[in-house]
Amino acid sequence: MTDWIKKINWNNEGLLPVIIQEFESKDVLMFAWMNEKTLRASLKNKTTVLWSRSRQREWMKGEESGHFQKIKSMHLDCDLDVLLIQVVQVGGIACHTGRKSCFFNSIDDKGDMRVDGEIIVDPKNIYGVKNG
Amino acid sequence: MTDWIKKINWNNEGLLPVIIQEFESKDVLMFAWMNEKTLRASLKNKTTVLWSRSRQREWMKGEESGHFQKIKSMHLDCDLDVLLIQVVQVGGIACHTGRKSCFFNSIDDKGDMRVDGEIIVDPKNIYGVKNG
Repeated sequence: MTDWIKKINWNNEGLLPVIIQEFESKDVLMFAWMNEKTLRASLKNKTTVLWSRSRQREWMKGEESGHFQKIKSMHLDCDLDVLLIQVVQVGGIACHTGRKSCFFNSIDDKGDMRVDGEIIVDPKNIYGVKNG
Repeated sequence: MTDWIKKINWNNEGLLPVIIQEFESKDVLMFAWMNEKTLRASLKNKTTVLWSRSRQREWMKGEESGHFQKIKSMHLDCDLDVLLIQVVQVGGIACHTGRKSCFFNSIDDKGDMRVDGEIIVDPKNIYGVKNG
């Protein structure tokens, strides 16, 4: 059933890059990493379980904030080394800054960078620590 | 103007993960890498210039196939370590397998993997070597 997991080309840290996209709007919400254990946990729970490289630990997205991500679809790429997950984002906020998407630093035609994502919720009101 | 490039958190290989999304459909087409030189070339040319880790060389997407990617928008994430680019995909094919998107290995509800992306063009007819 999950024999394809054995074919995944994990990177030299045993990790797989994961692109997380909102199912309905198709907005890209965030980018994260999984190891084999968190991939299997994600498949089982139908919610994203990730590997934090900065904290070197497993985390279920939403474990602190309640902003879980219900998995709607999963696709591996041609080289079996990147995973794309479409989700329903509980609470509508994926970014630890309180924005919908992590990709809010827009680079305009002149090459200038400006913030174009609205802060929906003050992150102080949703987290004890960064992310989650 | 491009002072933000100095703030990018490149990985330990000096690379930035890049998510490439079709502007109109919002389909995620592919995942790639850039170094500072190819990022600057992409900004200048308004077409994606990437770093191939397998070939250890710079490549302009479309240099062999003609399937260039015209850049419509660029966004960096909250941690300034991932780039999302929206493009117009010339020829409608991003994947070296001749499919629109690289993400054609679908994992279904039972955890089985199956191919769900149509081969639009036989890759033998578009490439001398893999990718490009």
